[in-house]
Amino acid sequence: MRQSTLFGRTLREAPAEAQTPGHRLMLRAAIARPLAAGFYTWLPLGFRVAKKVERIIREEQDRIGAQEMEMPVLTPAEPWKQTGRWEALEPITFRTKDHNGREFMVSYTHEEFVHLHAMQEIQSYRQMPAIVYHFQSKGRDETRARAGLLRVREFVMKDAYSFDVDQAGLEKSYAAEHRAYARTFERMGLDAISVESDTGAMGGDVAHEFQVLNEAGEDRIAICTNCDYKANLEKATRKIAAKASADGASPATPISTPGATTIDDLERTLRLPASAFLKTLLLRSKDGVVAIVLPGDRAANEPKLRKLLDVANLEFANDADFATVGGVAGFVGPIGLRNARVLVDVSVETRPYVAGANKKDTHLRDVVPGRDFSGERVDVHDVREGDACPRCGGKLEIKRGIEVGNIFAYGTYYAKKMNATFEAEDGTRKPFVGGSYGIGIGRAVQTIIETHHDDRGILWPPSVAPFDVHLIALPVTEPEVRTTAEKVVAELETTGLEVLYDDRDESAGVKFADADLIGIPLRMTVSKRNLKEGKVEIKGRSSADLELVPLSEGLARVRAIVAAWPR
Amino acid sequence: MRQSTLFGRTLREAPAEAQTPGHRLMLRAAIARPLAAGFYTWLPLGFRVAKKVERIIREEQDRIGAQEMEMPVLTPAEPWKQTGRWEALEPITFRTKDHNGREFMVSYTHEEFVHLHAMQEIQSYRQMPAIVYHFQSKGRDETRARAGLLRVREFVMKDAYSFDVDQAGLEKSYAAEHRAYARTFERMGLDAISVESDTGAMGGDVAHEFQVLNEAGEDRIAICTNCDYKANLEKATRKIAAKASADGASPATPISTPGATTIDDLERTLRLPASAFLKTLLLRSKDGVVAIVLPGDRAANEPKLRKLLDVANLEFANDADFATVGGVAGFVGPIGLRNARVLVDVSVETRPYVAGANKKDTHLRDVVPGRDFSGERVDVHDVREGDACPRCGGKLEIKRGIEVGNIFAYGTYYAKKMNATFEAEDGTRKPFVGGSYGIGIGRAVQTIIETHHDDRGILWPPSVAPFDVHLIALPVTEPEVRTTAEKVVAELETTGLEVLYDDRDESAGVKFADADLIGIPLRMTVSKRNLKEGKVEIKGRSSADLELVPLSEGLARVRAIVAAWPR
Repeated sequence: MRQSTLFGRTLREAPAEAQTPGHRLMLRAAIARPLAAGFYTWLPLGFRVAKKVERIIREEQDRIGAQEMEMPVLTPAEPWKQTGRWEALEPITFRTKDHNGREFMVSYTHEEFVHLHAMQEIQSYRQMPAIVYHFQSKGRDETRARAGLLRVREFVMKDAYSFDVDQAGLEKSYAAEHRAYARTFERMGLDAISVESDTGAMGGDVAHEFQVLNEAGEDRIAICTNCDYKANLEKATRKIAAKASADGASPATPISTPGATTIDDLERTLRLPASAFLKTLLLRSKDGVVAIVLPGDRAANEPKLRKLLDVANLEFANDADFATVGGVAGFVGPIGLRNARVLVDVSVETRPYVAGANKKDTHLRDVVPGRDFSGERVDVHDVREGDACPRCGGKLEIKRGIEVGNIFAYGTYYAKKMNATFEAEDGTRKPFVGGSYGIGIGRAVQTIIETHHDDRGILWPPSVAPFDVHLIALPVTEPEVRTTAEKVVAELETTGLEVLYDDRDESAGVKFADADLIGIPLRMTVSKRNLKEGKVEIKGRSSADLELVPLSEGLARVRAIVAAWPR
Repeated sequence: MRQSTLFGRTLREAPAEAQTPGHRLMLRAAIARPLAAGFYTWLPLGFRVAKKVERIIREEQDRIGAQEMEMPVLTPAEPWKQTGRWEALEPITFRTKDHNGREFMVSYTHEEFVHLHAMQEIQSYRQMPAIVYHFQSKGRDETRARAGLLRVREFVMKDAYSFDVDQAGLEKSYAAEHRAYARTFERMGLDAISVESDTGAMGGDVAHEFQVLNEAGEDRIAICTNCDYKANLEKATRKIAAKASADGASPATPISTPGATTIDDLERTLRLPASAFLKTLLLRSKDGVVAIVLPGDRAANEPKLRKLLDVANLEFANDADFATVGGVAGFVGPIGLRNARVLVDVSVETRPYVAGANKKDTHLRDVVPGRDFSGERVDVHDVREGDACPRCGGKLEIKRGIEVGNIFAYGTYYAKKMNATFEAEDGTRKPFVGGSYGIGIGRAVQTIIETHHDDRGILWPPSVAPFDVHLIALPVTEPEVRTTAEKVVAELETTGLEVLYDDRDESAGVKFADADLIGIPLRMTVSKRNLKEGKVEIKGRSSADLELVPLSEGLARVRAIVAAWPR
């Protein structure tokens, strides 16, 4: 392809709003352009990368016997209502109505619809295991679209769905997808680790995310430095030593704490560490007010809370709620609350704490959980750096990660709600046992950039590079240079190589800077100077070394380099 | 692929609502399934066909230097409003709002957005000509979704957009796309003719449709039996001989026509042919009531009227309108109307007619257009079989057609509305000169079925067939048969052939019937009987001849047949 007419202009500077290195480079190299917040167009360079990412995903899905199909973008409301997700997904989806008033969703995923199809197409246990998948645009009305393609409001996802006759079958399919995902990310140059994750809106119990550790990520991952435990903080737990005791503790006693409405205030006023306090959060749930009790030094994990309360967004108690439960803002504590469901985080130990007294400017000291108040035990705290691994007790570290894939074993969750059954070997009707498996294309592409760049630009792994070779003619206005360059391009293309040919009338500085920015793995320069000696210059994007090879050997040299690339 | 686990079940009978042969076969062969009226899922077999159709389109677009990209499905309202299409397209599009109230359309096409990109990416005349294209889902809220994939509410379209510096450039790009379309349809086995068409919602003046003549089509095409004139009736004209004369005609005179409110009534009552009458339609327009005057034997063409009145839907005058203009329902005529714009079809001759008198139970005879009333001359009548070709005067025939592609040369229509300019060679800013070029994938696939089937099933052209070879094992329960069949499948696949392997435990009758229904071009049967003689059976789907070849030669024979297929 001729760069002079390439639809996509490189930018010297990234727009100020670009938030991460990958976001900046993606815009500068004309990979994609925003049309509205969170809505992107793939420009031709980026499109080529996206298609290579898709091809790798497709090959690995096909390798495990998955069948490609395609479900529509707009899906009717009724099946979503059957599973309860029409309402549950309202805050983060786009909806529309046709001119007859029938409701549709810009699909969030396709579990409901693939089950409808399975009911029609799979009649007997003999037709399973079956995995189907498609690449399709998804809509997500993200209020926090951010960092270019990392979090958008429309994106193409490969979503696969497995159908098995029983749990053992599902486990095999799940394991096959897990292996396919590992190969998929490896092939596209992503060092993705598999971590335990929450099932969120998907239902079911078992789920993994594939995370690429990177500062641009918005997920936080707990990783054991000793064993192979890895979990998203949404799901991570820790080993809690039962070391403390309340033996001989004094009875709870009020103390005056005027104006001390936060843990910070209390630390200063009472000269005690944050861990000496209990904090009590009052949240609204479908069934009334919920009080969450945590140690003063522990943060609540929002996704854990959302899951526990089964809500899409957390909502704090309002003044009326405070009145109902007898809480006093800034001085809430677990003792004396009425009409509230009390949930006590597992981090709370059986020892004396200072807690709110539900009375203005007053706390209680020597509050002993279990002795002075009780509640359901829950795990809603944020695991943090240095916590003990729940599996081996080793030290956990916390890293930022980009979630590039997720897999869910939801079992019969959807099949039961939708009455999606097949004829089992024993002649009875049984619900399908399923899982779903997603990879977002755009996020994968930008994650590759986040993890493969230097200060001059992108360094595409060859397997996903928009072109194999960037051929630069210097200067293109020189007839011999142009003729030779075009001959070399034709030769390279004849052997099946993809070539971006910089035929622009620009300086060497501009051309080399653009080549570094765009990041095609191999650069080949046909210049007037080298042609005098009958040579061409070859340089790898990730290497500083230039090679001058005789023109007649250039093609063979390039082919040898390309042949050694992993695909 | 093993047919035993193929996701997609063939049906013995098509659902009763299936409207055309292609619709019935598409459902029976498990090509696609509806999820809601006008919304379809490609099942794996159909998906493979769709991808081959896409590949042919892609190759022909790439051949003319078009660059692939991808714009989103949801597009923001503002650019649509800039061109006036937000409102104009309202009746046939889906809209949504995000949770901040910002409006989006499930894109109808992408002219507005590709212009936004062109403004950013193309700065100078040097970067043109440029053609970009994408395959993307489109939404159309069709009230008349019909005939399976022929008219749907969501479909993937390949839409290409050309950008040129001037009209001459556009003409070249348009011609290149026209040639690419001809090759594209030929390669997928469609005998598509290029016909002049109306530009509809696209703007501009020059447009062609590629029509496949077929009874399943909803378009009507005028085709000259003498020259190469071909036009959609939306656009077709005819040569009108100026033969009649009004010399010596009597003055217009009222006649009593009690109860004769239709041309039919008048023919019976007055014993005159329909051509002796004028009919006058009262329609509503943005600027008030419009009277359309046509000969009694000529039908109005709705798309011509819609275009003339610049409305999405025709609306007849109501009682209040009749009162305003002085018309009497059933007896409307052009004489004596007030406050109405009078439009006279070019079919109306200058000779005496019988026309409504705008008075109950009364008509006027000897009404001479031009003498007794006047109006703007317009062409709004339906051309019909036997009319004279506007180009050569030859006889026109009218055929049904399926529109499989359309191309529009809209020039600066969008660029001017959006102020989309580039730096011209003379240093000034000039608007882009453009065209757009669409092909719907699903409609193409079903049109192939409509035109390639027999009473047993589909006959896929090899270039788009879901598989090259359908290998049938009979019976699969026989170990030798199964072993041999799987060896043959592996050999065929190793040479790059795509094989559907019928490994189901079904009778020969069921398997052959399914093979005929699914319509893979080549059937290969490994049966117990033939294996005894060391032979396999090969049969082309479109031929009645069976070939028995030695097992050792089967692969070579299949490869020879496949090598002769057009691609």
